[in-house]
Amino acid sequence: MAQKDQKNLHSINHKEKIAVIGAGAIGLFYGGLLAKSGYNVHFLMRKDLDLVKERGLIIEWGKETFHLYPVQAFSSTPQIGPCKWVIIALKSSANDVLLELLPPLLSPETVLVCFQNGIDNEKWLYENFGPRVVIGGILFVCINRTGPGKVTNFGFGKVELGQFNSLPGKEVNEFESMLRNAGIATEKVNSLEEARWKKLVWNIPFNGLSVAAGGIDVAEILARPELERATRELMEEIINAARAMGYAINHDFIELQLTKTRKMGNYKPSSLFDYFEKRPLEIEAIWGRPLKKAREKGINLPKLQLLYALLDSLNSRM
Amino acid sequence: MAQKDQKNLHSINHKEKIAVIGAGAIGLFYGGLLAKSGYNVHFLMRKDLDLVKERGLIIEWGKETFHLYPVQAFSSTPQIGPCKWVIIALKSSANDVLLELLPPLLSPETVLVCFQNGIDNEKWLYENFGPRVVIGGILFVCINRTGPGKVTNFGFGKVELGQFNSLPGKEVNEFESMLRNAGIATEKVNSLEEARWKKLVWNIPFNGLSVAAGGIDVAEILARPELERATRELMEEIINAARAMGYAINHDFIELQLTKTRKMGNYKPSSLFDYFEKRPLEIEAIWGRPLKKAREKGINLPKLQLLYALLDSLNSRM
Repeated sequence: MAQKDQKNLHSINHKEKIAVIGAGAIGLFYGGLLAKSGYNVHFLMRKDLDLVKERGLIIEWGKETFHLYPVQAFSSTPQIGPCKWVIIALKSSANDVLLELLPPLLSPETVLVCFQNGIDNEKWLYENFGPRVVIGGILFVCINRTGPGKVTNFGFGKVELGQFNSLPGKEVNEFESMLRNAGIATEKVNSLEEARWKKLVWNIPFNGLSVAAGGIDVAEILARPELERATRELMEEIINAARAMGYAINHDFIELQLTKTRKMGNYKPSSLFDYFEKRPLEIEAIWGRPLKKAREKGINLPKLQLLYALLDSLNSRM
Repeated sequence: MAQKDQKNLHSINHKEKIAVIGAGAIGLFYGGLLAKSGYNVHFLMRKDLDLVKERGLIIEWGKETFHLYPVQAFSSTPQIGPCKWVIIALKSSANDVLLELLPPLLSPETVLVCFQNGIDNEKWLYENFGPRVVIGGILFVCINRTGPGKVTNFGFGKVELGQFNSLPGKEVNEFESMLRNAGIATEKVNSLEEARWKKLVWNIPFNGLSVAAGGIDVAEILARPELERATRELMEEIINAARAMGYAINHDFIELQLTKTRKMGNYKPSSLFDYFEKRPLEIEAIWGRPLKKAREKGINLPKLQLLYALLDSLNSRM
């Protein structure tokens, strides 16, 4: 799937409206790359709005800095109006506000693209705004919002794209071409749920332990033998649960993940930023729903249960 | 064992020297009650020394206040000299300082009484200061040090007394009579190790979760369904491990503990005070050693492993 799909490439209408909801690192980065490539991107943002309208958006990338100006930035979704593509890059913990934000952006043709962590966000979008095509994007990226309207990229990989409750259809192909035109590697997945569970194998331990162990990065987790062991055993639990649900994740995936993570250096998982900045954790999407889904199948996950209980308590006190 | 043992009572020499090492809530409370009953108690204390010598020791008890004056308080153990009884009421995390503190207090007849949390502290005392009689006291008490030289009692129950590596001998009987004379309920146990593991069934979850969940008391733990579930499942793990080691602890002990704890109201486990006051946790005595002992027997305790890993990390950052 790495080769360019010329047919789809040529069919893309660069004037089709795209809305990016959420002006954190994810929204600014992917929205910024699409806008840079000539796509018609509209950003919804609040606190950074004036600055971004006046000075534009900055993406730092190694020693390079990319400056996007002007930026189509808006403070409300009625100002944007109906779009072909709506990229949702808010924290899943803030999904309730989408009930108010999204309707002005929707036409019958609107495709929702979910760039959120955890499971079942696409299901929630489909149930609240469907029937329509809902695409899930699983991001392999290390980016931080390093200032108002500013994102720093510490390395990024592919975006996995799947479609809720369906094999990938033509909308996934179109969106994939848009990302590729913007210089982003992509891979289509036949089972969005399986890909989301696979991502959980990393997110559940690293996002969770980084917070519950007192605010530490991935290198510090792996430097403590008992935390590394906890990481492995959490990964085993998740893989066992995923396999029991019919998803094909092998146990050797654990070593791959650990090797990959050791190369990330002092990377801070997104939940660690939530913790430092006293924002709500994505508690249900990353830990709560997987635990409950496994329980419904009669699968007991003792470590995830404890981690969820602790994070839920910490989250209620932030 | 609740009736008074008249023979032992009469054989007690009230002039026998007692040293109390550690002037926290435990040392001041039990040492204070013994001194009040006429025993020859010497307190080792540092920061509160001048105040206690000048003004005495205060024990608050419901609406009553007991004032002990004068108090035999000293700043070093050579000033105290050899004692018949040495009560160790320091945190187990500070045991290394005993290597320096204890020798001036010891004669061949000295009995060590360990009033510490967790397991294997008596073993450590025996290995470093034996062969001699080492008594373990398991305290069922809710007391806090509420000021310099001041302790507030929120309810207390019995002290369980056992002897390291032995059935209770005459020294345990003698010490038991001393406590009873001071108004303290006691119970002798044939297996000190079993009694210590039984206490762990409470300490591991409540001391641990109170810290790892962000600094909450026992009522707050039990008010959160997932934390209550984590408590139960941790208790089950500990009981399973204890039973595999041959200790007689039944699973219905869990409900008893929860019922008892619900009556404690907003009680703060001792580790929660350690956490609030940024003192080291008793990390090995309460969580680390039990985990390692179970591992040596091939018993996997997934929840305890995670809890220990998290607390160990939090502890290293306090």
